[in-house]
Amino acid sequence: MHYSAPVADMLFTLEHAAGLSRARAEGEAGEIDVETLGAIVEEAGAFATDVIAPLNRVGDREGARLEGGAVKTPSGWAEAYRRWAAAGWNGVLADEAHGGQALPTAVWALTSELWAQGSMAFGLCPLLSHGAIEALEAHASEELKAKYLARLVSGEWTATMNLTEPQAGSDLALLRSRAERAGDGSYLITGQKIFITYGEHDMAENILHLVLARLPDAPEGTRGISLFLVPKFDAHEDGSLGECNDIVCSGLEHKLGIHGSPTCSMSFGEAGGAVGYLVGEEHRGLACMFTMMNNARLAVGLQGVAIAERATQDALAYAHERRQGRAPGGTGAAPIVAHPDVRRMLMTMRSLTAAARGICYRAAVELDRARFSADEAAAKAAQERAGLLIPIAKAFGTDVGCDVASLGVQVFGGMGFVEETGAAQYLRDVRIAPIYEGTNGIQAIDLLTRKLPLSGGETARGVIADLRATASRVAEASSHAFGGTAARLDQAIDALEDATAWLMDSDRDPAHALSGATPYLRLFALAAGGAALAEEALAALRTNDAQKAAARQALARFFAENLLTAAPGLAASVTEGAGALSPEATEAALAL
Amino acid sequence: MHYSAPVADMLFTLEHAAGLSRARAEGEAGEIDVETLGAIVEEAGAFATDVIAPLNRVGDREGARLEGGAVKTPSGWAEAYRRWAAAGWNGVLADEAHGGQALPTAVWALTSELWAQGSMAFGLCPLLSHGAIEALEAHASEELKAKYLARLVSGEWTATMNLTEPQAGSDLALLRSRAERAGDGSYLITGQKIFITYGEHDMAENILHLVLARLPDAPEGTRGISLFLVPKFDAHEDGSLGECNDIVCSGLEHKLGIHGSPTCSMSFGEAGGAVGYLVGEEHRGLACMFTMMNNARLAVGLQGVAIAERATQDALAYAHERRQGRAPGGTGAAPIVAHPDVRRMLMTMRSLTAAARGICYRAAVELDRARFSADEAAAKAAQERAGLLIPIAKAFGTDVGCDVASLGVQVFGGMGFVEETGAAQYLRDVRIAPIYEGTNGIQAIDLLTRKLPLSGGETARGVIADLRATASRVAEASSHAFGGTAARLDQAIDALEDATAWLMDSDRDPAHALSGATPYLRLFALAAGGAALAEEALAALRTNDAQKAAARQALARFFAENLLTAAPGLAASVTEGAGALSPEATEAALAL
Repeated sequence: MHYSAPVADMLFTLEHAAGLSRARAEGEAGEIDVETLGAIVEEAGAFATDVIAPLNRVGDREGARLEGGAVKTPSGWAEAYRRWAAAGWNGVLADEAHGGQALPTAVWALTSELWAQGSMAFGLCPLLSHGAIEALEAHASEELKAKYLARLVSGEWTATMNLTEPQAGSDLALLRSRAERAGDGSYLITGQKIFITYGEHDMAENILHLVLARLPDAPEGTRGISLFLVPKFDAHEDGSLGECNDIVCSGLEHKLGIHGSPTCSMSFGEAGGAVGYLVGEEHRGLACMFTMMNNARLAVGLQGVAIAERATQDALAYAHERRQGRAPGGTGAAPIVAHPDVRRMLMTMRSLTAAARGICYRAAVELDRARFSADEAAAKAAQERAGLLIPIAKAFGTDVGCDVASLGVQVFGGMGFVEETGAAQYLRDVRIAPIYEGTNGIQAIDLLTRKLPLSGGETARGVIADLRATASRVAEASSHAFGGTAARLDQAIDALEDATAWLMDSDRDPAHALSGATPYLRLFALAAGGAALAEEALAALRTNDAQKAAARQALARFFAENLLTAAPGLAASVTEGAGALSPEATEAALAL
Repeated sequence: MHYSAPVADMLFTLEHAAGLSRARAEGEAGEIDVETLGAIVEEAGAFATDVIAPLNRVGDREGARLEGGAVKTPSGWAEAYRRWAAAGWNGVLADEAHGGQALPTAVWALTSELWAQGSMAFGLCPLLSHGAIEALEAHASEELKAKYLARLVSGEWTATMNLTEPQAGSDLALLRSRAERAGDGSYLITGQKIFITYGEHDMAENILHLVLARLPDAPEGTRGISLFLVPKFDAHEDGSLGECNDIVCSGLEHKLGIHGSPTCSMSFGEAGGAVGYLVGEEHRGLACMFTMMNNARLAVGLQGVAIAERATQDALAYAHERRQGRAPGGTGAAPIVAHPDVRRMLMTMRSLTAAARGICYRAAVELDRARFSADEAAAKAAQERAGLLIPIAKAFGTDVGCDVASLGVQVFGGMGFVEETGAAQYLRDVRIAPIYEGTNGIQAIDLLTRKLPLSGGETARGVIADLRATASRVAEASSHAFGGTAARLDQAIDALEDATAWLMDSDRDPAHALSGATPYLRLFALAAGGAALAEEALAALRTNDAQKAAARQALARFFAENLLTAAPGLAASVTEGAGALSPEATEAALAL
């Protein structure tokens, strides 16, 4: 309702909370200067505000519709998508060889967040295309790249990820879709896929489906899965479209939210087999999917941040307009922002959003360090830090999205429950984000079992040491306005260190450790988020802008004194909470 | 999908967590024996399961529709309501003089929860009627009672509460609806009301609107509001229906959830004035509304519990069916309940639901003690305990409803986001409960400013002493299966005592205290909820049922070791969290 892209705030977070300014100083930020970066993000913000945001409510109301096998997207979406693609936004991260701009990952992250701010359902389409570009760039043959990548990078065509089947969601070992060698180097794909985002639509002339399937001689489990490019229309050498493939969109899901985004059931090969082309090696399809996992998970975390931003902007505007009740010490009906409890909600919204954004951007900056560092060891270390931060960014970003959207409804009161204000749409839309692209439980398990062990635990210890250094700088700043920020940060980092050491103990029963995965991720996120806000406050203190310094310190302080206080309790849940989660105890309790 | 009313569990909670068995022993439980109580609740459970629950999805899909000024409720709803009323369920709490059964409040509480378990939107209708019965019993003239109460108690007629106007939600001082003396003892009412639940519908032949409005000579603010009974149809002496009143339902809200419940915009007096009858004294209408506040708020807390129950039952069933991924130490795809992180979600759902239910039922038992105690001082003390517990029951019950419904969606994964499973409907439906009947922020402020001061703080200290006694009994039980329950309970009660003492400090800046209202209520709820679960476990230990004892201890232990651990952090938010919530600090931070 009152949306404007918070470009200056985002850039400040990128520079200071995420450490882009330091990465730049160390030559690990890519070849983009501050001005160019600012200009690009400013332009993206204007596009999100002016073109995409007006599509969001109409997308929710009209939804995508399946009519005779074709999917019609909501009014205005196709035209807006074409304008968006024509402006070059689809290729910011792609190789220059295929028409991309090969800009830093940070640029892609901020622009991705902006599209989701405009409309999460709209921004999903390019998110899928982006994943496919990454997978094809890394694993496709030169022939496939030559034939398909340029139009995918330009955005003339879009792409999908076909993983899920009714019996195979988080567990891809259970996939049943089949691929057979056609004899001419191509393959014939048959199978049913569900939950295929933008599996069919009218925004682009062609759709490239990346499909996971099994060959007849495939080993069982995830080691027997291959990845195929299955285009809706074949492409001729000259780039013109050829025959329509054996692919049918058989239904759309009726979903809680993101109504504008068609979630398709796809049937491959009902008339004999859909023609597909192998990407990467046979049976190694899952490795190819892993290529794009970091960016995709980061982008989903940013969807959470984006919705949190929108919900916060709306709630804030409403809280300044709506007059109810006397404020402490006041007379007459005051704007509800004057009520301490409403202020608590708004500050919770604002600080959670900023904290999650700081973590997401830090992950993007680490990905850039890994891309651009001249030093191999430094690049590897940065890649591992990104790997550690990304499950946190995805899970915390999306949890924050849900929590903040729900608080947004609460600030609106009865009007929040009525669809016309839009507060409820944010809650409905964002609720998918903790589920797709790896549920948040899976992110927590990934953090625990794959990321904590990186470099023998040095990666995690290094990230935690960074947080500790931030806490020390806050203490050294000796600024009264920080209140208990340094002490609460230190307490949270103590808790994080204790829980980390407990989890890394090699004698630990894996089931006990896994029981604490979710509170551990939350603990890590709170400590990292608190440090991100503190870094922003410290940076603001270094400027001459007293207002900005006061504001950033208030935000960091609120978070530290009100949300970081949960840290010791979360650590206790990790280290002592498994007792009642044994299969026997749980089974008995759940059978009550 | 798999619903069955958890009657035995509810009765166990009522007896042991809520203390009905003790109240009965002390002669303060009313004249109902265990068997009769069990039989009534069993029958209500069967009705909820067999008749109401099948209406829930159809209510969501069809919604209530406004057609030419009349509201059509979803298929089957009118018939089910008539069966429900014919079975006598509407009158369980009403005076026998008007055809009620005057049963204990506990019976009303459990049956109210059951109707909401069946369908929250359906159960809302009698909830409103009940509030009107209370108000009329307490404040209406004998003539009004004689004319209207019997048919309202029987359920032949229903009732509404007309408080909210566009500019007056939480703040009733801003009401503008007008009443003029007609000269014959009646009044003419004019004004626009919004958010009127079941303001118009086809389930009953008449609707009695209780309307707040101002007389021409009314003082400003809330001291100038009067309460009127404004019937849709006038009633003749013989009980037959007379003329249609000057009342129009001008619109229905398009809401996030509870689609089956018509939320009406009501226009009174567009053709000159709707005939109304004064309830209570002129200008004293708000006091009349306060009469029914305790029961209504308790019932809304129980809506949260009811939805949490449904969401938990569904998630549990799904987690046993759905097979994905290997469990620790297992082979092949396991039911997802085998995964520790899923077990954590399910145990969180189950234990939060049970804890919130325990608090709600305790409030009901205290209301009964106040009704039935022969000792005046004991009755007053019980009434105050109920008053203290009810804002906690309302806010925590409804927050738990939202949190558990959201976890339910998460357990279902992608299927949770698809409307067909029903998991999303729970989330949509329950989201209104933290808002209506006094937002949860208002509950927290009520707890702080009106309930903590009761009897100079003795009421709160007494309730907290009860919790401490429970913790001591857990320690004395020396049962290994309790794990750290006693220690965590003691820690939480310490935190609660500290925060309570801080808030009661007469030198405290009111704005600082109000800043901590919401975390304080949560802290109180966690401590009381943990104690409720512990009381159930202690009661189970006293039986010979080893399985039940193990199950109840596991539930209490999980809650204590994983959720009660938040208590010290919440206390810190209360006592130290106001620093960044000053108007200046907040304004700066929110303007970023």
